[in-house]
Amino acid sequence: MVNERRLGIFVKESRQKFEEFLGQMVEVPSISMDSSRAGDMRRMAELARQYLVGMNAEVQVVETGGYPIVSGGWMAGPEYPTVTIYNHLDVQPAQEPEWKQDPFVFRNDRGMYHGRGATDDKGPALTAMFGARYAIEQGWPINIRFLWELEEEIGSPHFAAGLKDRTAVEQGWPINIRFLWELEEEIGSPHFAAGLKDRTAVSRPDSVVVSDTIWIAKGRPAVPYGLRGLLSARLILRTGENDAHSGVTGGAARNPVAELMEVANACVDARTGRVKIPGFYNDVVEPSTAEIKSFLKSGFDVGRFKKAYGFRSLRVQNPADVMRRIWASPTFEIHGLSGGYHGQGVKTVVPGYAELKISMRLVPGQVPEKVFALLKKHVAKVNPDVKVEKEGMLHPFKGSFEGPYVDCVKRAVQAGFGKAPAFVREGGSIGAVVTMQKAWKVPILFIGLSLPEHGYHAPNEYYDWGQASGGMKTFAQYFSELAKMGRA
Amino acid sequence: MVNERRLGIFVKESRQKFEEFLGQMVEVPSISMDSSRAGDMRRMAELARQYLVGMNAEVQVVETGGYPIVSGGWMAGPEYPTVTIYNHLDVQPAQEPEWKQDPFVFRNDRGMYHGRGATDDKGPALTAMFGARYAIEQGWPINIRFLWELEEEIGSPHFAAGLKDRTAVEQGWPINIRFLWELEEEIGSPHFAAGLKDRTAVSRPDSVVVSDTIWIAKGRPAVPYGLRGLLSARLILRTGENDAHSGVTGGAARNPVAELMEVANACVDARTGRVKIPGFYNDVVEPSTAEIKSFLKSGFDVGRFKKAYGFRSLRVQNPADVMRRIWASPTFEIHGLSGGYHGQGVKTVVPGYAELKISMRLVPGQVPEKVFALLKKHVAKVNPDVKVEKEGMLHPFKGSFEGPYVDCVKRAVQAGFGKAPAFVREGGSIGAVVTMQKAWKVPILFIGLSLPEHGYHAPNEYYDWGQASGGMKTFAQYFSELAKMGRA
Repeated sequence: MVNERRLGIFVKESRQKFEEFLGQMVEVPSISMDSSRAGDMRRMAELARQYLVGMNAEVQVVETGGYPIVSGGWMAGPEYPTVTIYNHLDVQPAQEPEWKQDPFVFRNDRGMYHGRGATDDKGPALTAMFGARYAIEQGWPINIRFLWELEEEIGSPHFAAGLKDRTAVEQGWPINIRFLWELEEEIGSPHFAAGLKDRTAVSRPDSVVVSDTIWIAKGRPAVPYGLRGLLSARLILRTGENDAHSGVTGGAARNPVAELMEVANACVDARTGRVKIPGFYNDVVEPSTAEIKSFLKSGFDVGRFKKAYGFRSLRVQNPADVMRRIWASPTFEIHGLSGGYHGQGVKTVVPGYAELKISMRLVPGQVPEKVFALLKKHVAKVNPDVKVEKEGMLHPFKGSFEGPYVDCVKRAVQAGFGKAPAFVREGGSIGAVVTMQKAWKVPILFIGLSLPEHGYHAPNEYYDWGQASGGMKTFAQYFSELAKMGRA
Repeated sequence: MVNERRLGIFVKESRQKFEEFLGQMVEVPSISMDSSRAGDMRRMAELARQYLVGMNAEVQVVETGGYPIVSGGWMAGPEYPTVTIYNHLDVQPAQEPEWKQDPFVFRNDRGMYHGRGATDDKGPALTAMFGARYAIEQGWPINIRFLWELEEEIGSPHFAAGLKDRTAVEQGWPINIRFLWELEEEIGSPHFAAGLKDRTAVSRPDSVVVSDTIWIAKGRPAVPYGLRGLLSARLILRTGENDAHSGVTGGAARNPVAELMEVANACVDARTGRVKIPGFYNDVVEPSTAEIKSFLKSGFDVGRFKKAYGFRSLRVQNPADVMRRIWASPTFEIHGLSGGYHGQGVKTVVPGYAELKISMRLVPGQVPEKVFALLKKHVAKVNPDVKVEKEGMLHPFKGSFEGPYVDCVKRAVQAGFGKAPAFVREGGSIGAVVTMQKAWKVPILFIGLSLPEHGYHAPNEYYDWGQASGGMKTFAQYFSELAKMGRA
């Protein structure tokens, strides 16, 4: 149903608008982790709403108790399949000293789109939206209503044309497309489930596409069918009201930084990454032989992986070991330690307070609630003065890499990028996925568009026109494939 | 020679000027550790110079290759004893979130002088200066020169008066008083030795008083006769160019924060403080029985110590153990860890870089250079990728707690505060002390004026009029005692 030439022209003609929209989005610092950004979060939701309204979609900003969800789309008719595209519009903080520019000033360097959130996940969100725009412009179901609304009082002069479009819809794009844009993904989606309870604004689709994952490499599309879960926490120790002078008090004073480091070392072997919390590995379901085979066919290359993320060395060298570790094994990571002195040089204080920032990636079989209990128990044994504060919990996810929807994804990616995708797992966590799975019990597919070098969660994040243009084509093709498949 | 009533009036009348000067000094953020403060460091030196010039002292701002030294005073004659009072005018950073006010806005709360540097060491520096001012105003040797300089061209109408003062000098205060104010104490005095090489500007005295130490408690004056040394360093590990996404790379990526924590744990037992670096304790000279006895007589109280520094608990409870640990045992302290994420919540990055800020307090017998070699060797064994960067080195110091100078100090403190001082060691390190000892080979005494609750190196630092007024009297008395003693 997709006319390749027409789609090519559409994509080319969309570039200016796409870049304008992405620039506007990047320049809203929608850092969900930073409570001082509440105003920017609202601005972000409003901007997203306007884009959809501008495309004649019906849109709602759904209140959740936290930051809202933006939900909207076009209904051709309940008899047609409905697909919901999930993206998130909140971003990571951008305080890293390595930034070469203001992270919230958009810079378009000949098709390289620089700025925090460009690839995670504003660029892919807009890419999917432009893919839908093509589908809508071809089938244009909403236009019928649009013409009615604006011309009824003047005698509906285009009603006949509308009917003609109706035919086009039925023959061309009998599909309902909806977007679901979250603003709390980077903080573990604490209010997403509450948002989904508004069944009017956020109706249950027949399938979901999540567009927030990363390829193996440029030219190596990857479609994950599983995600790791996440359990993040802060380990807190206060031993004094203030920082004290290490000459005047050192030796007798406890050092909470040192004590938390002892706890850290009791939780994880720093060099191998082996987690030392008793019972941690008990429920881990190892990847199957078929999965490992699929990993090995993915074209994953250790050298390219190291280069993309700027690693000087890795814990393991063998590609199979690396893939298993990043996609299918749980981790215990230490992200930083606050308290004491972090500035230039050395300030000789005995800190009064320290806070260890940790998280664990969990794999299928592991239950975050259960792992949290194991962590608490272990920390209490190592150092009973340390408080364990839960930050976020995301269950791991495992979908399928076979079936009709997967076939649609394969054909869409092939059409968009000229290459079939590899089926792998994703090492990251998207809390909303498990929530949608629980709420709707429908197939969830992944069409990610980011490249490793784009810098997810890293300084100097960017997105690029190559991924955006191929992505628009992929999404247009995917909508066409779903329309062809009809309702299951 | 001190007229108690006259001194009392002088002190009372000096209060306003003292508070004005201290306010000016505190409001110059002379943070030697912060390279962006170079301009403030110069302002601080100039302000100090002006105070001494205003008291008709001859003053020089001595270039050292780093921040300058301010050296100045009044010479009554080479036949009289010369005493040099050492203080430092640089301060610690003040970025702690616990500050209840702008640390560089002076706040005088009815004789409580709030602001960074108030007690460490600007307040004591000014206190000593006002003590000297009294001595000078009584004996006024410099006035003679001053009158000569200003009245020679008009026929020296006060020459006779000058001669009369000269008599006063000889009878009253035959002493040369000099101040030596450093601006690099908080960074380990890297250029102090170079400054002392200027023998014209910084001449060799017969004895030194260092005024930068802390009492046991309010009403419990303490005079230390020993200092711990210091060896500070940064342990650095870079494993990637950037922070990376812990979902996408975690498990395969090395974690430099975790690896440095492993190194930290291999260097020190976090709970007991026992240093694990092989050979670390080899050269430690344990305190003598006489010293331990002197410690026990000092009036040190564990509860008061905990309260003064805001500690919830200590590594040991017994007073003798606490005193031995803070005054006479070496330590390995971890001050903080930079790299990764320190903000609100948890940001799930795998850091590319981490830096551990550590220092060791060393005791008599230990040689910083030797201990640094032990540290480097040990770290290389634990993790060869970790770089060890030396920050500063200060040799420990041990003076005497007997002899004529010590007797002068005893009498001066008794006169100033109505109570004889305890003789203890100081757990902190003052690099300049060992440098002066090597350069001049003269007795070095300590008359400190700070209280534990004043918050050395801590947020909400302050100084108070009680210590300042008693301190002025103590210094005035001490100058009188030295004058009486004459040249050895």
